[in-house]
Amino acid sequence: MGKVYVVGLGPGGREYLTIKAAQVLQECDAIIGYQGYLELIKELLEGKEVISSGMRRELERCAKAVALAREGKKVALVSGGDPGIYGMAGPILELNAREKDPVPVEVIPGVTAAGMAAALLGSPLMHDSVFISLSDLLTPWEVIQKRLYLAGEGDFVVALYNPRSQGRPHYLEEACSILLKYRKAETPVGLVRKAGREGEEILLSTLGQFPAQDVDMFSTVIIGNTRTYCADGKMITPRGYVL
Amino acid sequence: MGKVYVVGLGPGGREYLTIKAAQVLQECDAIIGYQGYLELIKELLEGKEVISSGMRRELERCAKAVALAREGKKVALVSGGDPGIYGMAGPILELNAREKDPVPVEVIPGVTAAGMAAALLGSPLMHDSVFISLSDLLTPWEVIQKRLYLAGEGDFVVALYNPRSQGRPHYLEEACSILLKYRKAETPVGLVRKAGREGEEILLSTLGQFPAQDVDMFSTVIIGNTRTYCADGKMITPRGYVL
Repeated sequence: MGKVYVVGLGPGGREYLTIKAAQVLQECDAIIGYQGYLELIKELLEGKEVISSGMRRELERCAKAVALAREGKKVALVSGGDPGIYGMAGPILELNAREKDPVPVEVIPGVTAAGMAAALLGSPLMHDSVFISLSDLLTPWEVIQKRLYLAGEGDFVVALYNPRSQGRPHYLEEACSILLKYRKAETPVGLVRKAGREGEEILLSTLGQFPAQDVDMFSTVIIGNTRTYCADGKMITPRGYVL
Repeated sequence: MGKVYVVGLGPGGREYLTIKAAQVLQECDAIIGYQGYLELIKELLEGKEVISSGMRRELERCAKAVALAREGKKVALVSGGDPGIYGMAGPILELNAREKDPVPVEVIPGVTAAGMAAALLGSPLMHDSVFISLSDLLTPWEVIQKRLYLAGEGDFVVALYNPRSQGRPHYLEEACSILLKYRKAETPVGLVRKAGREGEEILLSTLGQFPAQDVDMFSTVIIGNTRTYCADGKMITPRGYVL
């Protein structure tokens, strides 16, 4: 039997792959992924069976990966960022576990979007944090809302995945309003768009003045805790060292 | 003037470096790090000025990196996992921002411990999560405790960094007790020790029976949310897809 490797591509182009991920892609017979991600690693696809599809076709891609592994192939199911953080590791494992005879699956982790955004902004994730997706496609908004309140109460740094899309333009504004109940308007907020890719944008703003309307699905947003500050152009959350 | 690169080594040996991190290490004149991490990348240190030191010498290493950059050198300050998540990005940026004339600092992200642990366990981090460090060296235990209660209330998946050390042997047991107020004893808990390194260990257990005494400072612990389950030997948190 073949095997499915769920390969994290990291945030951008080829240079943010791990060496392990690059090796696995090289050894695979077939590569399956969202077309937008496959474009970022074009040079690694030569000579491979390539199956690309559009957004929201995740389950189809998983089923195809399992089918090809059954044919004896080594299959890379690629995922932007880290496949284990809002990526493809979940759906493939859920689907595969329901098979009568599951195929071998191995997850190759990658740099997640929040890690990359943090690196570009400075060091905002240096203390306890929450990762929350603002997408209500698979989670009711009430659950997301409750988690934002708790994040505020716990003074967690907040990393927002899927911060905005056409179908839910007001959630990000609402998220900021919720956190404003616990944090000052001056609290630093960082926005990174197209991290590690052409057209990369980095913006340091504040919770009170954050331009939520400029955020899109290529963005990651990090909201500081009550101790986060900006200095030397960087967003810094203190770890607690006495300097 | 030189420059400090804060380089994430990822969880284990060389293969979990990003291609970018490997390139940066190659281009640097000096490499500074905790001796335990430098041993993992021995083959990359040849011909470099290497400055290693023991645990809890973080601030000394940062000061040295800044000093060498002032001499015009390209310096890699290495950090296990992702330097921006409980790593070296914070202290170096804090320290540097207090300098009269800060040196250029760039953070190169890496795969963080929780991402690697998740990949080895299955897909436990597929829904909203909190990252909490159980170390009270820099954070009062009362703050950590409060965050654990809030994580329970919000049904966040919980990734624990620094889950246990000799100085605080009971915190992990307490963390499990707190989450048991919100989650069943059968809730899956994953433990990964020495991820990606020699002696790697992976254990799937439950919140009720978790062997906290086996956890040490080389471990990462991930506690599932109320929907996390085990199947086909994997720890899976559903994302919400209708299969």
